[in-house]
Parts: sequence; C-alpha cells; structure tokens
Amino acid sequence: MKSDIEIAQSAKMEPIVSVAERLGLTEEDIDLYGKYKCKISLDVLQKRKERPDGKLILVTAINPTPAGEGKSTVTVGLGQALCRIGKNAVIALREPSLGPVFGVKGGAAGGGNAQVVPMEDINLHFTGDMHAITAANNLLAAAIDNHIHQGNALRIDSRRITFKRVMDMNDRALREIVVGLGGKANGFLREDGFMITVASEIMAILCLSKDLMDLKNRMGNILIAYNLDGEPVFCKDLKVQGAMAMLMKDAIKPNLVQTLENTPAIIHGGPFANIAHGCNSLLATKTALKLGDYVVTEAGFGADLGAEKFFDIKCRYGGLKPACTVIVATVRALKHHGGAKKDELSTPNVDALAKGIVNLEKQIENIKKYGVPVVVAINKFITDSDEELRLIEESCNKLGVEVALTEVWEKGGEGGTLLAESVLRIVDGADSDFRCLYDDKLSIKEKMNTIAKEIYGADGVSFTAAAVKQIAEFEKLGLDKLPICVAKTQYSLSDNPSLLGRPKNFTVTVREVRLSNGAGFIVALTGDIMTMPGLPKVPAAERMDILEDGTILGLF
Amino acid sequence: MKSDIEIAQSAKMEPIVSVAERLGLTEEDIDLYGKYKCKISLDVLQKRKERPDGKLILVTAINPTPAGEGKSTVTVGLGQALCRIGKNAVIALREPSLGPVFGVKGGAAGGGNAQVVPMEDINLHFTGDMHAITAANNLLAAAIDNHIHQGNALRIDSRRITFKRVMDMNDRALREIVVGLGGKANGFLREDGFMITVASEIMAILCLSKDLMDLKNRMGNILIAYNLDGEPVFCKDLKVQGAMAMLMKDAIKPNLVQTLENTPAIIHGGPFANIAHGCNSLLATKTALKLGDYVVTEAGFGADLGAEKFFDIKCRYGGLKPACTVIVATVRALKHHGGAKKDELSTPNVDALAKGIVNLEKQIENIKKYGVPVVVAINKFITDSDEELRLIEESCNKLGVEVALTEVWEKGGEGGTLLAESVLRIVDGADSDFRCLYDDKLSIKEKMNTIAKEIYGADGVSFTAAAVKQIAEFEKLGLDKLPICVAKTQYSLSDNPSLLGRPKNFTVTVREVRLSNGAGFIVALTGDIMTMPGLPKVPAAERMDILEDGTILGLF
Repeated sequence: MKSDIEIAQSAKMEPIVSVAERLGLTEEDIDLYGKYKCKISLDVLQKRKERPDGKLILVTAINPTPAGEGKSTVTVGLGQALCRIGKNAVIALREPSLGPVFGVKGGAAGGGNAQVVPMEDINLHFTGDMHAITAANNLLAAAIDNHIHQGNALRIDSRRITFKRVMDMNDRALREIVVGLGGKANGFLREDGFMITVASEIMAILCLSKDLMDLKNRMGNILIAYNLDGEPVFCKDLKVQGAMAMLMKDAIKPNLVQTLENTPAIIHGGPFANIAHGCNSLLATKTALKLGDYVVTEAGFGADLGAEKFFDIKCRYGGLKPACTVIVATVRALKHHGGAKKDELSTPNVDALAKGIVNLEKQIENIKKYGVPVVVAINKFITDSDEELRLIEESCNKLGVEVALTEVWEKGGEGGTLLAESVLRIVDGADSDFRCLYDDKLSIKEKMNTIAKEIYGADGVSFTAAAVKQIAEFEKLGLDKLPICVAKTQYSLSDNPSLLGRPKNFTVTVREVRLSNGAGFIVALTGDIMTMPGLPKVPAAERMDILEDGTILGLF
Repeated sequence: MKSDIEIAQSAKMEPIVSVAERLGLTEEDIDLYGKYKCKISLDVLQKRKERPDGKLILVTAINPTPAGEGKSTVTVGLGQALCRIGKNAVIALREPSLGPVFGVKGGAAGGGNAQVVPMEDINLHFTGDMHAITAANNLLAAAIDNHIHQGNALRIDSRRITFKRVMDMNDRALREIVVGLGGKANGFLREDGFMITVASEIMAILCLSKDLMDLKNRMGNILIAYNLDGEPVFCKDLKVQGAMAMLMKDAIKPNLVQTLENTPAIIHGGPFANIAHGCNSLLATKTALKLGDYVVTEAGFGADLGAEKFFDIKCRYGGLKPACTVIVATVRALKHHGGAKKDELSTPNVDALAKGIVNLEKQIENIKKYGVPVVVAINKFITDSDEELRLIEESCNKLGVEVALTEVWEKGGEGGTLLAESVLRIVDGADSDFRCLYDDKLSIKEKMNTIAKEIYGADGVSFTAAAVKQIAEFEKLGLDKLPICVAKTQYSLSDNPSLLGRPKNFTVTVREVRLSNGAGFIVALTGDIMTMPGLPKVPAAERMDILEDGTILGLF
C-alpha cells in the first residue's frame, strides 16, 4: 500500500494558473508561488460583490478518538466528489503548522486519495503565512520589552504582561523561560514563555479579519499587559500595529492549491482549536463562496467545540449562512463511546455501538439548534459490519437525518459520491435557517452557561475564584460583550476526557478566562491547555530526508 | 527630495519573467514569487557548465564611518552603469535581515537611484529564505533539548551546548535566557540565548554550500555541544540534518529581482559580517557568473574584514577568481580618518584628508596582496572640493590605481559610467592573478598571525588563555585546518575602533575562538561581539504603516 506522501508525489498536478482560470481568475487576480501555489488578491471579493455566494457546507465530527475520524480527508473527498459529478466546488481548509510536522504526526493535508497537493510545500513553509504571523507577533513582543527597557513611559507592569512570544516549532523548553538576563544592556529580567505560532492571537485575528484595515485595527486592540495602576495596555499604545499589518500584507491573501483530482482548494489560516476558534480564515471562506457554487470547509475537533465556534464566532463575525453540516463518524469511534476497548474496535459489536451512538445523536441535535440541516458521513473501515452500519442508519433516520457511507481515503472523489448526493439534496432544496446560539451582548457567565447547557448537555458551569475575578475585570473594562471561545477537551462532550458517549449530570468548570480583544472573543479555559507542544522520544524529523533530486522522504 | 522608498515605489518594474528571459532563463528554470521575484533553479549551473564564467567584480570599502560609505549603493549603481553602456551585467547582493528593518535603519537595498526593487518585499519576507533558516536552526535547537529530556543517550553536557536558538528580530531580552522552567514536563533547566537569524551557522552554511547534498552534509557537521566526557557532539548525532535540509529546499535557490533600471540582481544569503563571512551565497555568485558577462558583488564592512573573508573563505571554497576590486571611499570618511571632527566633515580640509588617505592606501596594498587589480570609487558628495578630489587621485595614481567619481545615488547608472569604464579597462585587459593569503593547513595561530600582520598591519597577535585552550581543543579534535573568520570592529584596521587612519605598533587580541564546523571556518573573536541587536528608543517600526491600497510607509 502506498503511503500518503507516495500518493501525493505521484499526483498529476495541473498548473495552478489553469486551476485559477477555471475559477474565472485572471493573472491580475493571483500571485504565483512556484508553479502549483498562488495567492488570490482580496480585490476579487470586491470585483464579484454582485455574484451570489455559493452554498457553504461545514464538515465536522463526533467527539473523536485520539486517532481522529478523518474529518479533513472527508472534507477533501467531498470536494472531489462534487467536482466529479460536475459541480463547481471549492474546498476551504486550514493551513498546517510546521511544528507538529516534526513531532508525532508528520504532515497534515487529508489522506490517501483525498489529499491536497503539493503536499510537501503545504506542510513546510507553504507561502510563508505562518512565518509572517511569527514575525508580527515577535515584533510586538520585542517592542514590549524594549518599551520597558527604554524608560517604560506606559508604566507596564512586567508581572502582568499577557502577550507572549511564539515560534512555529514543538519546543517544550520554551514554555516557561526567564528573559532579560545578563545585566543592564539586555533589559529587565522577567518571566515569559513561547507558544506555538498557531496559538498566537495574530493568527486568530488573521482568520477573523474582513480586510487589511480591519486586521490592523484588530492588532492594535490586542490587550498586551496591565500597567502598574491595573489599567489595560493595548498594542496600539506601542504604535506598532502599522508595522505588524505591513508584515501581514501577503499573509492576509488566501492561498490556492488543488487536490489530487485537481479540485480547487483554498488553504488559509489555522488557529489553534483550543485557545482560538479553529477554522480557516473568513477571507478565504468568503473568497471561496465567490468562486465556487459549493464550498466545503471544516472546523477543528468535534462538533461541540469546532462547529459551535464556527457558528458562534466565525459565522457571527462574517455573516455566513451555512447551508448544511456534515458530521463525520466512524463505527470504531462510536463503539469506543459505547465502552469498547481500544484493541476491540475492529470486532463487530452492536451493543457497544448502540450505547455509543448517543454521542452522534447529541451532535446532530446540537447542529439543529443552529437551524442548519445535517448529513452524517460514515468514514467506512473494512472491519465495519453491515449490521453496525444499519444500526447507525436507523438511528439517524429517526432524527430525520440521512447517512452516507464514504470511502474517500481509498477511492478519492469516487468514494464520496453518495455523500455528495446527500449534501446536494439538502443544499439545493430549502435554504437553511441559520442563527447563532446566544446573543453576544449577554454577560460572560450567561453565554458560557448557554453553551454548556445547550451544547454539552451540562447542568451548569462553575467558575473558579480566578475566573470570577477575571470576568469582573473584563466587565469593568467593558470588554466582555464578545463571543465565547471555549478551550475544552475534544474527546468528550463534557470537560472531562474520560466521560464518553453522552454524559449527563455534570457541571463544567471554567478555570481561567482570557481576553483576545484583538481577535474579538473571550477564551474560557476548562481543564489543562497546551499552547506549546513538545517533541516525542523519536521525532518524525529523524525519519525525514531530502535526496539529491529533491525527493522528500518521511513526510506523512 | 524623494525618499528611497518613494523612488522605489515609482520604479517601472519589468515582469521578472522578462528579466529572466533576457538572461536566457526559461520558465522551467525559475519559480515565480509574485510578479517581480523569482527563484532560479540550481539546474541552471549544470545546464551551463560549458559556458565560460563572467568576470567577477568585488565592491568593498575603506574602514567606514558609522554612516556607511555607500558600498551597496555603488554596487547597484555600477551594475546599472555597465548595463547602460551595453554590457550584460548581473548584480549579486546579500539579502537583508528583517530584524534591523524595525530598529534604526529601516530597509537596506541600495539607495537613491541605485536600488533593488521591489524594495518592500526584499526588506520584509522576500522569498522566505530567512524564515527557512530560522526554522532549520530552531528544529535543531528543539531536538537538542528534546534529546536531553528524553533520556540523553548521547550524554550531552547541558553546560556546554554551543548551538543557540535564533529569531529574525532585534530583541535584546532574548540574548541571555533560562529555558526549561516549570517542572518535569518542560524539560531540564539550562542557560540559553537567542541570536538574530543571520548570525546562525545555518546561514553561513547556506552561503558556502555547493549544492543541496553539500548543504545537508555541512549541517550534519555542525558542532552543537560536548558530552560529559568532553567529546564533541554533532548535529548528525541527532539525525535531523535531513529534515533541516528539507526545510532549506527552496531557500538554497538564488533569488532574482531587478534594479530601478531593470538590471538583473541576484539577492541571496546574508551572513553576519562578524561571526560569519559577510557575503552573499556562493551558489548565487556562481549562478550570476553563468548568466552575466560581468558580475558585481560586495562584501560586508571594510576591505580588511569583508574583502579578506571574501577572498580567503568564499573564493577559497568556491574556486572563484575575482577579476577586479572596487574600493569605495568618501572624502568625508578619509577626513574622519585624518582626525577631522564629525561636524566638520562637510568643510574642505586638505590636511585632514592628506593624513587620512593612508587608510585607503593600506586597503589598496592589501587587495594587491591577493593579486587582484584595484579601482577606487569616490562616492561623491556636493561638499567635496576639487582640491580634495585631486589629492585622492594623485595618491592613488602613485600606487598605480585609477580613481573614478561616482554619483549613482543621485543619478543612477548614469552616475556610475566613469567607474564602469575604469572597471572594464581592467577586467577586459589581463586576467587577475588571484591567490589566497594563507594556506588553511597552517595552525590557527599561524593563520591568524598572517592576517593580522599582512592585512591589519599589526605587530602580532596575543591570544587570551581562554582562546589558547579552545585552540588546543580544536587541534586535538583535528578540526583546526579551516580558514579563519575574524570578528573585529569595522571602524579600524586594528581591533580598536578608535585607532583611525593606518594604525601602527599594535597587536590584535583574540579573546575567544569558535568552531563553525559545518560552515567550515574558525571564528576568531576580537573585542565585543553582538549577535542579537536591540531596538532603539524610538524603533523604526513606529513610523511604519500600510494603507488601505497596500502602500507602505516608513520603510527606508
């Protein structure tokens, strides 16, 4: 069996100029990055203002197992399938972070016969967006310490600097550091730390901005610290948001590539799905909607986290109206939710499945609360029994939801035809009746309670003393009227990763509340949160190599 | 008067495809990065193996004043002038670092009417080479700490890790840091520090590599630490040189842009001129020599540092034979060397000039020791008197050297015609008789003594106890048979910045010796050396901005 990278390397790519041409883009509209990648000018949005938007299809999932349920692969495969049956479909994905590539997982751009290419470039530097974010972030960080060193006119309290440095690398040694050692010339000593670049607020801002001026404005609004009187200090107080926006002038433009079957794929932005909202950029999605009749996109983690934030943050800010949601599930993961052990997931087990299917049912109910129709996609494994598949179908049909089997990993677009047909039946029928779950003018506690009760099925939320204090602070500052971005385990509907299925009788604990004032959301943290991964015992980097002819090995 | 950025923004750029075509490059030979930048495939060198190389012209300078003597500007202007008089000339420059852009100086790509464009892109992310170096460097750094965390099979002595993290930013707070705080999950505590990216050994390696496999091999040879038995540990012991080379797959390709007058300019690589050798990449220079009949390049700092390393390191490794050296001088700087005060440099002062001209004379003598003919270029200021200019001409003529006035800042290529004609008289005449100054098989002390006596005019070299110990260590390891890369003040021929003119009766003190085993040189440090700059009280970043239409302000 061929590995992902071998499949990707044998792809027959079309020059990206011609992929762009098929979408009606001219040479003026694009900037090439080599022969198979380009950036799309933001002017395209203006030029096509009058063209009706395509239909927006969100791909999300049940609460996954650590192996993942193939959400990105289904997203790519569905796009390929739609094109295969003659539709003008565009895929809109997140761009991968360089750090994790060298850790456990290698690359990330779909899998099998449902991948985006050129896979090596997408996984490595791509068009430099991550590097631009890193540079903009670290310019602001350097400006903060420089301001203190040069006299600290703003009276920044070096104990209360909330803005951190970033690096696009898995580097645990940088999580908690002390900077400014070595005496006067090196500035003042203080505690600091690095996050991985995708966890930067700059990334979240890139993904929620309407245009370059909005991006600059949002960057100016980043809360970076408090002064010695406890008042907030913003990025704009240091006057570097102009320089930061300048660094982002190309990064703000969506990137166009293609799938193995030459389906256009816009890959742009990739905010962390815990301390940020976990979906690709609004500009990319809007551009895709002006280019395609059908746009397939995805959101990070399971639907309780990913779809909730997609709807309540991204769609709210962007005025998007999703036409349909695809929930990806696997028989294996549903059995896992029903209590089957890890090494027994390949054995047919209708009892475990019947117990675990409640997770899927709850996710379906949740999506319906947003007024968006649902299709369930079963990412089929050879070990799935007919009886198991029938059980899922019956359950979903009871909820009025179609189920489609997909085999896109093995068969590419052809394996997604059934899913594509189901999706088309819905989106070409009635319009969706999309609405956000809560009013962002409610209090932080009210908003968090709504999410926890309505989406997670919790009895309520308890806030730690620290969280209560932070909420009071944001309320005092009048900076609390923003949507909530929950950081929570992806493995459970609750905030406890071991509560599988559809947990009941639990409360969610919010340990900390952070303000991403530039991005425009309030992060509610439950459980531990990791913003800088580490490398494993044997990093994927060790198996990677490049040969004399440029062939890349070990990236998968 | 227009600022540099205003001149650059009003340039009539030719599509880079057509600049490439004029050099005989096909679409297969280049990868576009937008409409005005491209990378040149390394295959071009192979394809044109049989074509005779063009003539290599090095632009260097006297010991400069802090304002600089316009070396880059003359380099660009000379290239423009050669094209203007009908020659096929190519310019080969270093690429600027992003960090200093936000500090004091803003951008760096020539000046006035002798600039390379698109100036904004060249000064910001360009084609991502710096970011690739940063990523490769920091992957190795993360792998070192991860190796220790995961059991430290190599028994790395965390007190003796010589490889540092880098960031392309002026950030003094990162010069000396402590990493690994926060307990077991975050690894072992140790002292560390960041350098600016251009100071990375990876950058020096990029600039001295013959091809991708040579680059990978050199990266594997980086000395990263010693183990607890005092034995050296190399990058290849961590098995990440393949992944690092993979990250450099595009960065290794030279970048092609153009000047304001559409002269082709290859801009690639930019190692620090103190702890590295300070010239653009060997691959870029070799590519330029296969594309142009005349290649104009430059080396960092004054000739005693820049030209010496260009000849003894870059030309030695690359088998290059420079045909001519241009020494840039200004009347102002020569008066400064003769004792004139900073605020009197605009006043004619033949006496000070007569005293200071010895600096120029010594630099001329030095270049001749390499068997390379010299032309002196006077970068003319409106305040220069005829008498002063005549004195320089007479002095140089006594040494058998032509002097050409240049006004390229004001007039572009037209202002460099006299210089171009002087250069052509030399390079189209007899071949140069280039030879390196010393045999790299000599001992470190012998090599250093040769440079100090022959080039700086010192009586000798004294080595501190620490340096003696390091030298003994490298000799014991058999890693001492490499050329020397001196880190020294650029303001004096000596290692004391206040000794102007042509100092005599001094010895040079080598305080520390470092091994850049991957790059292939031994760094001899004299005086203080700064590998991470800081931001000034009012960073240039504060005056920078980008407008709605994409216009960039404050980058100059």
